[in-house]
Amino acid sequence: MSAAPCPFGSHRAIGGGLPQPAEKLDSSLPLRANELLIAVEALNLDSSSMRQIAESCDADQAKMRARIAEIVASRGKMHNPVTGSGGVLIGRVKQIGPDFPARDLEVGDTICTLVSLSLTPLALDEIGAIDVAGATVTARGHAILFASGLYAKLPPDLPQRTAMALCDVAGAPGHVARMARPGMTVCVLGTGRAGLLSLCAARQAMGRSGTLIGLDASAASLEWARELGVADRLVRADLRDPLATHAIIAELTGGRLAELTIATTNAPGCEGAAILAARPKGRILFFSMATSFTAAALTAEGVGRDVEMIIGNGYTEGWVDTAFALYRAFPQLAGAFHGS
Amino acid sequence: MSAAPCPFGSHRAIGGGLPQPAEKLDSSLPLRANELLIAVEALNLDSSSMRQIAESCDADQAKMRARIAEIVASRGKMHNPVTGSGGVLIGRVKQIGPDFPARDLEVGDTICTLVSLSLTPLALDEIGAIDVAGATVTARGHAILFASGLYAKLPPDLPQRTAMALCDVAGAPGHVARMARPGMTVCVLGTGRAGLLSLCAARQAMGRSGTLIGLDASAASLEWARELGVADRLVRADLRDPLATHAIIAELTGGRLAELTIATTNAPGCEGAAILAARPKGRILFFSMATSFTAAALTAEGVGRDVEMIIGNGYTEGWVDTAFALYRAFPQLAGAFHGS
Repeated sequence: MSAAPCPFGSHRAIGGGLPQPAEKLDSSLPLRANELLIAVEALNLDSSSMRQIAESCDADQAKMRARIAEIVASRGKMHNPVTGSGGVLIGRVKQIGPDFPARDLEVGDTICTLVSLSLTPLALDEIGAIDVAGATVTARGHAILFASGLYAKLPPDLPQRTAMALCDVAGAPGHVARMARPGMTVCVLGTGRAGLLSLCAARQAMGRSGTLIGLDASAASLEWARELGVADRLVRADLRDPLATHAIIAELTGGRLAELTIATTNAPGCEGAAILAARPKGRILFFSMATSFTAAALTAEGVGRDVEMIIGNGYTEGWVDTAFALYRAFPQLAGAFHGS
Repeated sequence: MSAAPCPFGSHRAIGGGLPQPAEKLDSSLPLRANELLIAVEALNLDSSSMRQIAESCDADQAKMRARIAEIVASRGKMHNPVTGSGGVLIGRVKQIGPDFPARDLEVGDTICTLVSLSLTPLALDEIGAIDVAGATVTARGHAILFASGLYAKLPPDLPQRTAMALCDVAGAPGHVARMARPGMTVCVLGTGRAGLLSLCAARQAMGRSGTLIGLDASAASLEWARELGVADRLVRADLRDPLATHAIIAELTGGRLAELTIATTNAPGCEGAAILAARPKGRILFFSMATSFTAAALTAEGVGRDVEMIIGNGYTEGWVDTAFALYRAFPQLAGAFHGS
C-alpha cells in the first residue's frame, strides 16, 4: 500500500482500480488517514447472496460459516463470487482517521455501512450464528470505510438488526417513492423485505388511487404482504415462469399490464416475468442482485417490448430516512424484519 | 415440440420458458404455423461477442469458424455463452407460416432480424468469411422468426451489410434521441458503431448547444469519430480505468461532469468509468452487452453517486428508421461501417 489513499478506496484494491470489481482487497491495518475503522458486530448479507450460500451449503450452519470465512479470507471482503453481491454491516466506530469526512461521528457510535460489503475491506476473527431468514450473520472483526463511503447512525427507536436490514434494502423504496404516481398500476415482483418496503412506498405515493399488485412464489412471503395490507391484489406465482406471470398480470389488469414494475425477487431468471408484466412504454426497476444485464436487455428486445429498464442503485438521496420512516409508518412490517 | 406454438417462441425452448434464457433451442423444421423461415446469408455478431470470440481464437479464421459452428450446433442459436449476447442476421424470406403476422412480406424479400441471435433458432450448413472489424460472418443455413419477432425490410439505398450493422446497434441512437436535450453535457464512452451513432443522435438533439464528448481506448475508433466531426471533444482513454476516466471528464467539464453518459464500449469492466463520468442526478445509458448488472449497481452505491442507470433495450419505437436516417444524414459514418 504505497499509493496515496484514494477517496474511492483504490489504494486497497489489489491490482488497482475501484474496490468493487477488484478480486481482492487489502483489509490490513494500520488505518489510512482518510479511513474509518469499525469493530464489526453483525453482517446483513444481501438476499441473493444469503440464498446462494444457504442453498450451496444445504443450509448447514457449520458449512455456511466455513464458506463465509473462506470468502472473506481470500477476498478481503464479503463479496460472494457467485452472485457478485454483498450486503451491509453494523459495528462500533473504533478509530476515525484525521482526514475521514465524519461530521457527526464519535468513537463508540454504532453505525450501519451504506456501501456494499462487496467493496468494504473486512477481516473476521469469529463468525457466530447465522439467521438465514433474517439474512444476518453475527461476526467479530474489523471493517474499513473509505472517504466516499456512506454510513448511517442507527436510530435509537429501532432495534439494531432491524435498522441494518432496512439499510440493506433502502434503495428499493427510495426509487419507488420517486417513480410511483397516483393512479398508476404498479406490480411488485417478490414480497421479501425489499418488496414489502416497495409496496409501502408505492401505496404512500399512490394514495388510495391506482392498483397495487404483489406476486411471490413463497406462501410465507405473501403472508407478510397480506399482514401488511397495502396491496390491492396478492397472488402466488412462479416468477421464473414469464408466461405464467404474464397471464396472471394480464388477467388482474384487464390486459393493460403494469406501468411500473419493481423486480425484487432474489431468484435468478426472473427478468422475463418483469418484462412481460410491463405494458409498452412502462418502466421496470430491477432491484435484485440476481438480475442479468444481458438477459434483461435481450429479452425485452426479443419480445419486442418498448420498456424503460432501470438498474436499482442502492444510493438515492434520502433513502435511509425513507426506509426508517416507512418502517415506523407501517408497524405491520415487523413480522418480515423478525430476528431483529 | 408438442406444445402449441407460442408468440414468444417458448415452444422451441428445450425445457420451456422464453427462448432467450434457454440453454438450447430446437431449430429443426418443419415450420410452425405462426413462424417465419429465413434463408440465412450473413450474421452480424454483436460487438462484445465478436470481440470475445476473436480474442479466444487468436483471431484465427478457422478457429473462429469452428467456435461459431460449435455454439450454433450445441445451442440451436448463436448465443455466445461467455458474453450472453447475440447479434442479428440478414437473409431471404423462404416461407411464411399462415399465422405469422407479416403484413408486408413476400417470399424472396431480404430482411434483417431485429431480435437478438441469442433467441433466434438457427441451423448453419456453411460458415464463410469472417470480418472481425465489421463483425460480420458470411453463412448459409436457416433461421426462424417467432410471431413476436421484429424484422426490417432492407432499404434499397443502403448496402445490405451496412443496413444489418445499423440494425444491430440501432437501439443506442434510439435511446439517445429520447434522452438528449439542448444544452446538456453528454459523454459517449466508446466510439465504435453504437458510439458513433449515439454521437450523431445526441448532436441532432442538442443542435449546436451543449458539450458533446467522446472517449475511446482505440486510436482507430477515435479517428472515425474525428472524421464524423460532431463531437466537441475527443480523447483517448482506457475506459477500464475509472479514476483516469473521471479525471479526464472532470477536466473537460470544469468539474461538472456529464448529465448524460452513454456507455457503448464492448470491453468488460467499464461500469466504473461510466458512473464516475456522471454528475449527481445524471443519467447513464448502458448499451454494452459487456455490462455487469451487479458491478453497475454496487459501484454506483460504493462511490455514493445518485445516478439513474438505464439498461439499453434494443427495441425502442422507430429505432431502425432513426438509425437509417442518421446514416443518410451523416455520410462520414461510412468509414466505420466499412466492409459493407
